[in-house]
Amino acid sequence: MTRRVELSGAVMSFLHCTRSALNIWQMQSRVRIETSARLLQACSGCGFVRWKNTAANGGRSMDYQFSNTGWRQLVVGVLAGTGAVLVYGLHRQQVQQAEPKNTTELTSQTVSALGNEVKPTNSIYTRQDVAKHKTLADGVWVTYKTSVYDITKFVDLHPGGDKIMLAAGGAIEPFWAMYAVHNQEHVYSILEEYRIGELSPEDQKQATMDVDDPYGNEPLRHPVLKVNSLKPFNAEPPVELLSENYITPNEIFFKRNHLPVPEVDPKTYRLQVMGEGLKSIQLTLDDLKTKFPKHTITATLQCAGNRRSEMNAVRQVKGLNWGMAAIGNATWRGVKLSDVLKYAGLPENTHAKHVQFEGLDKDLTGIPYGASISIRKALAKDGDVLLAYEMNGEDLSRDHGFPLRVIVPGVVGARNVKWLSKIIVSKEESQSHWQVNDYKGFSPSVDWDTVDFSTAPAIQELPIQSAITTPCNNDYISADNEEITVKGYAWSGGGQEVIRVDVSLDGGKTWKVADLTGEKQDAGQAWAWKLWQLTMPLPKGQKNLEIICKAVDNNYNVQPDTVAPIWNLRGVLNNSWSRVKITIKPNSG
Amino acid sequence: MTRRVELSGAVMSFLHCTRSALNIWQMQSRVRIETSARLLQACSGCGFVRWKNTAANGGRSMDYQFSNTGWRQLVVGVLAGTGAVLVYGLHRQQVQQAEPKNTTELTSQTVSALGNEVKPTNSIYTRQDVAKHKTLADGVWVTYKTSVYDITKFVDLHPGGDKIMLAAGGAIEPFWAMYAVHNQEHVYSILEEYRIGELSPEDQKQATMDVDDPYGNEPLRHPVLKVNSLKPFNAEPPVELLSENYITPNEIFFKRNHLPVPEVDPKTYRLQVMGEGLKSIQLTLDDLKTKFPKHTITATLQCAGNRRSEMNAVRQVKGLNWGMAAIGNATWRGVKLSDVLKYAGLPENTHAKHVQFEGLDKDLTGIPYGASISIRKALAKDGDVLLAYEMNGEDLSRDHGFPLRVIVPGVVGARNVKWLSKIIVSKEESQSHWQVNDYKGFSPSVDWDTVDFSTAPAIQELPIQSAITTPCNNDYISADNEEITVKGYAWSGGGQEVIRVDVSLDGGKTWKVADLTGEKQDAGQAWAWKLWQLTMPLPKGQKNLEIICKAVDNNYNVQPDTVAPIWNLRGVLNNSWSRVKITIKPNSG
Repeated sequence: MTRRVELSGAVMSFLHCTRSALNIWQMQSRVRIETSARLLQACSGCGFVRWKNTAANGGRSMDYQFSNTGWRQLVVGVLAGTGAVLVYGLHRQQVQQAEPKNTTELTSQTVSALGNEVKPTNSIYTRQDVAKHKTLADGVWVTYKTSVYDITKFVDLHPGGDKIMLAAGGAIEPFWAMYAVHNQEHVYSILEEYRIGELSPEDQKQATMDVDDPYGNEPLRHPVLKVNSLKPFNAEPPVELLSENYITPNEIFFKRNHLPVPEVDPKTYRLQVMGEGLKSIQLTLDDLKTKFPKHTITATLQCAGNRRSEMNAVRQVKGLNWGMAAIGNATWRGVKLSDVLKYAGLPENTHAKHVQFEGLDKDLTGIPYGASISIRKALAKDGDVLLAYEMNGEDLSRDHGFPLRVIVPGVVGARNVKWLSKIIVSKEESQSHWQVNDYKGFSPSVDWDTVDFSTAPAIQELPIQSAITTPCNNDYISADNEEITVKGYAWSGGGQEVIRVDVSLDGGKTWKVADLTGEKQDAGQAWAWKLWQLTMPLPKGQKNLEIICKAVDNNYNVQPDTVAPIWNLRGVLNNSWSRVKITIKPNSG
Repeated sequence: MTRRVELSGAVMSFLHCTRSALNIWQMQSRVRIETSARLLQACSGCGFVRWKNTAANGGRSMDYQFSNTGWRQLVVGVLAGTGAVLVYGLHRQQVQQAEPKNTTELTSQTVSALGNEVKPTNSIYTRQDVAKHKTLADGVWVTYKTSVYDITKFVDLHPGGDKIMLAAGGAIEPFWAMYAVHNQEHVYSILEEYRIGELSPEDQKQATMDVDDPYGNEPLRHPVLKVNSLKPFNAEPPVELLSENYITPNEIFFKRNHLPVPEVDPKTYRLQVMGEGLKSIQLTLDDLKTKFPKHTITATLQCAGNRRSEMNAVRQVKGLNWGMAAIGNATWRGVKLSDVLKYAGLPENTHAKHVQFEGLDKDLTGIPYGASISIRKALAKDGDVLLAYEMNGEDLSRDHGFPLRVIVPGVVGARNVKWLSKIIVSKEESQSHWQVNDYKGFSPSVDWDTVDFSTAPAIQELPIQSAITTPCNNDYISADNEEITVKGYAWSGGGQEVIRVDVSLDGGKTWKVADLTGEKQDAGQAWAWKLWQLTMPLPKGQKNLEIICKAVDNNYNVQPDTVAPIWNLRGVLNNSWSRVKITIKPNSG
């Protein structure tokens, strides 16, 4: 039986993985989370991880075993609180027992990596060097801050299983941000055992430069991202990662660029504000940060094309082939758009209808990315539209719009203009391609010969959405398992709160209600997603399961059953039931 | 081929059937309506009506035939503008030709009903007398204002076919309100030919009285209503009528009472306003009408149980067995709730969260009907919550809450409290049964043994909805027809605007986009439904059609494909695709 407790301080601390304080909220009787150092059985193609929880007898003994599996065969579970301390404590002990001959005296300055040939710890490596070490065969290297580590020998000892391979060849920070259990002194000490050198000073700038290529000055990205398009850069994380943390770490947050990433000097940066009935003004970054009250919101951003690949499976559409991870949740800090508009002299009863935004990202002819939102949304007291300069407590990264972007909570990503250069209050909506001839929904009967973009409104608030992040489609699970845990995310646009997620293991014939976690936000301002999970008995005597989730928001809008009737030529707005098929492998006995 | 023109003045006048001015709006290129005196072929069980449109040759000749069919075999079509004048003109001529011997000289005072035995026109009849005359066998009587008419002989001559039978035994006003073509002097003259007497003075009060029965003092209702429950009275009109007019006439607007209808003396009526941070005040009806600005909105009301019968078909639920017509659209006039709350001293930054309403309708223990809405909705500048005293230009009828009701546009009918007696601003929502233990949505897995009403929020804003009103399920259509016309309504809660309705004739495999009509209202304040219709070629060589409609609102929320996955034990919130199966009868040739 799964043991559950109400959210404890330790769990809250686990979820609290960013610098921003989160008001974790218990949703009535359904908000529960697995606690203790229990790892749930994972369904995997070629193996599984088992973690026997003995918390019931005081946590004095622990029995664990894991086999080496591919990175997609992820452990579904949570390491939290004191349980994790025990895990790492025991692990270190096991490391020492397993390979006693190679252990050496640890100091903070002189370290021989456990089981490796002794390397000088002051070697200099490039990020390219690190990126070449992504497999057990080539060695598994990671970076943490400015240092480089060869953790090849630690992979099999990692309490979280081979999830550690996600970081192979790149930085470990986003995963530690996600699995906050690592943020403890003795974990840093373990890592320190594996240090082999430092990153080159140039590589710490994290940029490449090619003057002939408009995309030659793009920032470096984390190798875990699945790239849908390199130029412009569009990428999403492995979907399994999304449900691991309420706040999506910046580096794995999906990136949706329409044009090359501009490089902006914050010292010379100016925001122009103009339009109907306004003084035309320019604001520096410092003006924005000092002249207006600061506001912080936690809000989910979703690309209109999230889950487009499922539409492609019905009939080919035009657009990037996004999976289910073109969505993420972050804490944004900045100033209210409405405050800036008032400062620029917007009259109380303006006749303007729209607020247009332009970015500093431009195509080869100099046309910038642009979009607009309704002035109703811009000015609504509870609209919470921000001009944001921070994401999860850090300055915006270049990929996410440094130094300033619009955050229009509840509204499609495309209107959350990055590298914001201009705000124009107007009677008409933006005439940008992306506003008037893209990002609109049509009937399945409309094709590229018959489409008339003027007949549909620009997508703004998005409909109710949810998806299964674990297990993955085509995964295997052993019939030895008593239970199966299904996880995912759920969100609705327009500030509508997700009030329920139903999960089915039998293709939609019967349903169970999932447990929801997330920050308490008022209905109408519920900008952030809910994560959900549900552990159910594994049905006996079946070879396959079709697992489905569907969410309900506080307007009781629901997701449609199937994707074909909402298919549209641009492949946007897929919010049909999320479906995952898995195979049950016969009992080992 | 169907001939279509843009909305003309004549059509606008047709749609403009109430005293309130409607701003009829052309929805981009899709707003069109059938014009001229063309009656479309109706699909019927035992006959059909054909109307040959000769508008193309100047309307000089008209060829029409109709057979006698049951009232459900309704003509689907429209009589409008000058075409209708021609129709009635020709009809009168035909009446005279058909039965020349019975025509008499007409004066305003002495009339012999055409073809009837001569009756004194000053006879006195009760409404019960009239109600006994509902068939051709018993005679067909109707009332208009205070007069009684025997129209038996006119039924076969009625240009609109036997739709006239809808009024049999009752008042003709709601149908004339719906088919505004009748509002012409020569039509009144035709009716006058059939006058046989006057209603008794008592019956003009339209009330019955039985002191022993809590329901003994209920108002009279129009016999066309389909009664789901007599005590309390709950009834809906035949669904085909809904799409005949953008504004639903008061008498056929669905009635959903929870308790006996109170009789309120407007002279002694007082509205109490009280609660968190307010002065406790009482307002007379005159106070309300004179101290506050008047506001008018057109808004659709829908019962949470609309379309419950489709859930019952899956598995039995608890609740009245509503069809698809527990919805209606009206123009409401009154004062803004927010103005009244400010008048009562509600502080700008109130800590209150809810506004509770109590009705004058009480159960046998004296507990009144009650409900509440969020203070966010009550105070929102664009929330438009009214305390309404007029419906479609008339004082509220007793069934609709005389003398005052709340209109919470975009929100489920149950919060639109009738016979309003008390407004209470509070930190908690109403603890009324109907707020906390009813009108909530649950997973299909929840049954009466496991339900915990505290786990779901009270229904407020409703999800996207649409339904097919014509043809009816199990109707027949002749394969002789070249085309088929499908009609219906579409609406979304929360002020979301319906932007598209897709219609399928093949069970959802392929779709066409319907033409929408309705008043232009801003997204976010789109409180009123859209009516829609679509004429398509009748598929050849098929015996059956499954016709489906589904709507999309401006948040791109859509309806779910099927009803079983949204089934819930109270049978509320059915917004699955509307489905109608019809049979095609083989060619007559």
